[in-house]
Amino acid sequence: MRILITGSAGFVGSHLVERFLNEGHTVIGVDNYISGQVSNTDLFRDHPRFTFIEADVSHGIPYTGEKLDWVMHFASPASPPHYQQFPVETLMVGAQGTQNGLELAHAHGAGFFLASTSEVYGDPHVHPQPETYWGNVNPIGVRSCYDEAKRYAEAITMAYHRSRGVNTRIIRIFNTYGPRMRPDDGRVITNFVHQALRGEPLTVYGDGSQTRSFQYIDDLVEGISRLMMVKYHEPVNLGNPDEFTMIELASKTMNLVESKIDLVNLDLPADDPKQRRPDIGLAWKIIKWRPLKGIDSGLNRVFDEQKIKS
Amino acid sequence: MRILITGSAGFVGSHLVERFLNEGHTVIGVDNYISGQVSNTDLFRDHPRFTFIEADVSHGIPYTGEKLDWVMHFASPASPPHYQQFPVETLMVGAQGTQNGLELAHAHGAGFFLASTSEVYGDPHVHPQPETYWGNVNPIGVRSCYDEAKRYAEAITMAYHRSRGVNTRIIRIFNTYGPRMRPDDGRVITNFVHQALRGEPLTVYGDGSQTRSFQYIDDLVEGISRLMMVKYHEPVNLGNPDEFTMIELASKTMNLVESKIDLVNLDLPADDPKQRRPDIGLAWKIIKWRPLKGIDSGLNRVFDEQKIKS
Repeated sequence: MRILITGSAGFVGSHLVERFLNEGHTVIGVDNYISGQVSNTDLFRDHPRFTFIEADVSHGIPYTGEKLDWVMHFASPASPPHYQQFPVETLMVGAQGTQNGLELAHAHGAGFFLASTSEVYGDPHVHPQPETYWGNVNPIGVRSCYDEAKRYAEAITMAYHRSRGVNTRIIRIFNTYGPRMRPDDGRVITNFVHQALRGEPLTVYGDGSQTRSFQYIDDLVEGISRLMMVKYHEPVNLGNPDEFTMIELASKTMNLVESKIDLVNLDLPADDPKQRRPDIGLAWKIIKWRPLKGIDSGLNRVFDEQKIKS
Repeated sequence: MRILITGSAGFVGSHLVERFLNEGHTVIGVDNYISGQVSNTDLFRDHPRFTFIEADVSHGIPYTGEKLDWVMHFASPASPPHYQQFPVETLMVGAQGTQNGLELAHAHGAGFFLASTSEVYGDPHVHPQPETYWGNVNPIGVRSCYDEAKRYAEAITMAYHRSRGVNTRIIRIFNTYGPRMRPDDGRVITNFVHQALRGEPLTVYGDGSQTRSFQYIDDLVEGISRLMMVKYHEPVNLGNPDEFTMIELASKTMNLVESKIDLVNLDLPADDPKQRRPDIGLAWKIIKWRPLKGIDSGLNRVFDEQKIKS
């Protein structure tokens, strides 16, 4: 297949590029490096079936090549510090970026795959969150540039599916981690691993009792690959339902460095969700998918990658 | 002042044009007539301080005149039959249309006024709805092309206010009625009045126990005018909190024609909110505004207008 991936230099995007190249597909990567990393493009630059286009997909996707089978829209700042630094760009890649991808898919008769997010559930009142939950998002808060952009992206994807017949997929990605995350990603696993490696205190927001669940990148990529093969157009959660408090995660990180590290408590950011955990019954039902990698071995892999780099 | 109004040929837009012209301002109207009416432009076509530009604001606002004081973004299909007929256009006028208005306001150092909607509350779990309620909207439902477009419009308006200093206003307009609504608007007051005038049965969806509140257009326009004068950037509800069931509204309509008319019950549309009523405490606090026109005299005005036309 010929697959165009926006956000190909991002964390998830780069793992998709790798997977599809390994499976023998042709991949066109697109990124503007607003949050992607050049090093992620460099990994594949010499691959004979990989092409890279540097472009801001919010202003158009300048692809003029042969017929595409899939347009996968994975471009967007995704960590709170990044999207709050680029609120307008984040809003645009959710709206214009998604629409440009849909138009490209429509023109090629290709499938369109949207990377949405658990953030569409906001600070949820239902726990765990099934896909049928409508969410609790503050439309005017400091996180709304990301949350509302993704909700809009889902709405326009469904509109193109319903009114123009585009063969669409939507996934809601829950917290995902693994190699190739940006060191300044700003989310908890990256923060903890880098702080632990430097022997610095681990930063815990609030009292650390808020919970998160963490999915290893390979599990996510497997779920994406399976969902491409079935005709299911409504959103599907992809995440790991194993839930930890931030205090528990700090403790697991300390186990890796085999030393006691201090915690430092900072105030909770505005609109920070108190808990978030996927109901993955739908993914099990339609694609027989569930995550296979646990937090301990996943953390270990990230830790090893960072030790090699540092 | 020099005021540009998108959606100037729409129901609310045309009343704003009239108000501002009567107050001595210069008005530039912009509309593409996707849901606006040419007759609403014709009302002001010969006015020396009115200019009309036919354009789709989602693709840009081709204004090249003198410095603007306000950009008022009131363009959008707003009734469920209209926006469901034009889902992509509705999504675009909420995203690209709002952004084009914000960019124009930014370039002119003008204020930007966003017409948002009570639909951002979706099918609310909190009643009545204060501005602090985050809403209950289905991001992938058939109404999401409108609801999510408006939530996105609020988010990008706040982003331009926060990150680029644009002097913004956001109102959430609850059900509003009055002269110059499209006969095929599809919402209940227009339906009832036209059905009653034709002696047809009144269409009630579901069992008619769902409630709505209705604001007369002059009250809305007064609230808009007052909000322009205060620096308040977060959303403000403008609506009438007097609440009626559809059965009660049908009965009031029958009183107007002084005859007994049958009701015909149809199924409730998907995601139709069961109740919606504004908490208008904030508007009272910051602009000393509350609606003054009751439903009986308002209905009477609409009825008289339609009798003259028919």
